[in-house]
Amino acid sequence: MGRYKITMSYDGTGYAGWQTQPGHRTIQQTLQDAVRRITQEAVTVHCSGRTDQGVHARMQVVHVDLTDSARTSSLKRALNAVLPPDIRVDSVRKAGQSFDARRSVLEKEYRYFIWNGDVLPPFLRAYRCHVWGKLDVKKMNAAAAMLVGRHDFAAFTANPNRFVESTVRTLAMLEVRKRGREIVIIARGEGFLYRMVRSLAGFLIRVGQDGAKAEDAGVILRSRTRTGKVPTAPPQGLFLWDVKYPGGRKEKS
Amino acid sequence: MGRYKITMSYDGTGYAGWQTQPGHRTIQQTLQDAVRRITQEAVTVHCSGRTDQGVHARMQVVHVDLTDSARTSSLKRALNAVLPPDIRVDSVRKAGQSFDARRSVLEKEYRYFIWNGDVLPPFLRAYRCHVWGKLDVKKMNAAAAMLVGRHDFAAFTANPNRFVESTVRTLAMLEVRKRGREIVIIARGEGFLYRMVRSLAGFLIRVGQDGAKAEDAGVILRSRTRTGKVPTAPPQGLFLWDVKYPGGRKEKS
Repeated sequence: MGRYKITMSYDGTGYAGWQTQPGHRTIQQTLQDAVRRITQEAVTVHCSGRTDQGVHARMQVVHVDLTDSARTSSLKRALNAVLPPDIRVDSVRKAGQSFDARRSVLEKEYRYFIWNGDVLPPFLRAYRCHVWGKLDVKKMNAAAAMLVGRHDFAAFTANPNRFVESTVRTLAMLEVRKRGREIVIIARGEGFLYRMVRSLAGFLIRVGQDGAKAEDAGVILRSRTRTGKVPTAPPQGLFLWDVKYPGGRKEKS
Repeated sequence: MGRYKITMSYDGTGYAGWQTQPGHRTIQQTLQDAVRRITQEAVTVHCSGRTDQGVHARMQVVHVDLTDSARTSSLKRALNAVLPPDIRVDSVRKAGQSFDARRSVLEKEYRYFIWNGDVLPPFLRAYRCHVWGKLDVKKMNAAAAMLVGRHDFAAFTANPNRFVESTVRTLAMLEVRKRGREIVIIARGEGFLYRMVRSLAGFLIRVGQDGAKAEDAGVILRSRTRTGKVPTAPPQGLFLWDVKYPGGRKEKS
């Protein structure tokens, strides 16, 4: 019996999100099926944080317990041979029994990508939120700065009490960067609420379009109530980008 | 009656290539259908060079004659509203009657992209040829240098006499560049034979894998006969990258 830590990436376009649901094609189920095909073991895999339908992961981390002690390099190769090409295993390592892909997380980084031009390149259509009109990145960053820190983010989640007791979270970083027609929103923190990053992105886009003011950020936080100024940005712009664990080393090889 | 020059880009994954074929979804037919929906005119569009099944275009140039003199900006917007998201119109301009998307070409550039690492990122799976083992880029460039210039490329095309009288072409540039795990083969010339770039790429990959020597380039050229050392590289790595016309200005805005 051994615990394995799997680092993976996936294109979420063709999946109903991470979590196994009867009658739906999900990342979790596809990975579990692949593990079973290789090891004949019916396992449950646990991830650092569930991603929603259509959301991508540049880096997702998973743990799984296997009775058979396979070599990690051959396990990686075998999984990639069995998995569809929109899900890839980037590394497999032995992990201690105390390692938990979700509970051991030190910090996660999400990136939300916006294409801010009149024509969305066909090669990016599954990976960008397309916003035609000019966005004011300076205003977006002013609003973002007001959201950094420890706050009650009840106004920036869907179904605030669906999965969690408390809606208080700490945003370690929220920043908007622009390079040409590409704008990326970077969000870092220990934990995020359901649809929180897409809600933050939706609000920041609204601010950039002059549909909300930067100062609204504080008002909305204090209200603890979702408003029309906080739409949920579409899933295809969102990537789970990086996951950090104690030890200080990045897991992406 | 006016001639229009359309600059476009497309993801070739879902298409049986450029050219209209009964019973197949093609780029040409999809564009013609879009023009007809907007202008009610049954037109034929002419491109700078046909792309094969699964081949992409970062920049393809097309000319079409329309009786109605639409505004170019509204034509662009209308076409993008009607076209599927894997085909985009990047610009529409009025052109002189002497402009011919194919015959007026000064130089075309193709780029062939290789992912040279053990795991192909899921987001690039439709846009890269995946080569696991290490490629010797220096050797590939030595072979490429021997192919530059005016030669009979009969050994580097499929069905040499299918479309053309002569198999002599001038390669203005053939170069291999590496950046991390990405390798790109850049080919420039006035004209290319059927599957010529994929044949050149196939040979260069073979050289990089030590399955052929750089000096074989000259021998194969002189033989005018296709050999096992010249496989056709898969379509998804290939992009029509740039098309230049007299006037010196790049058409990609």
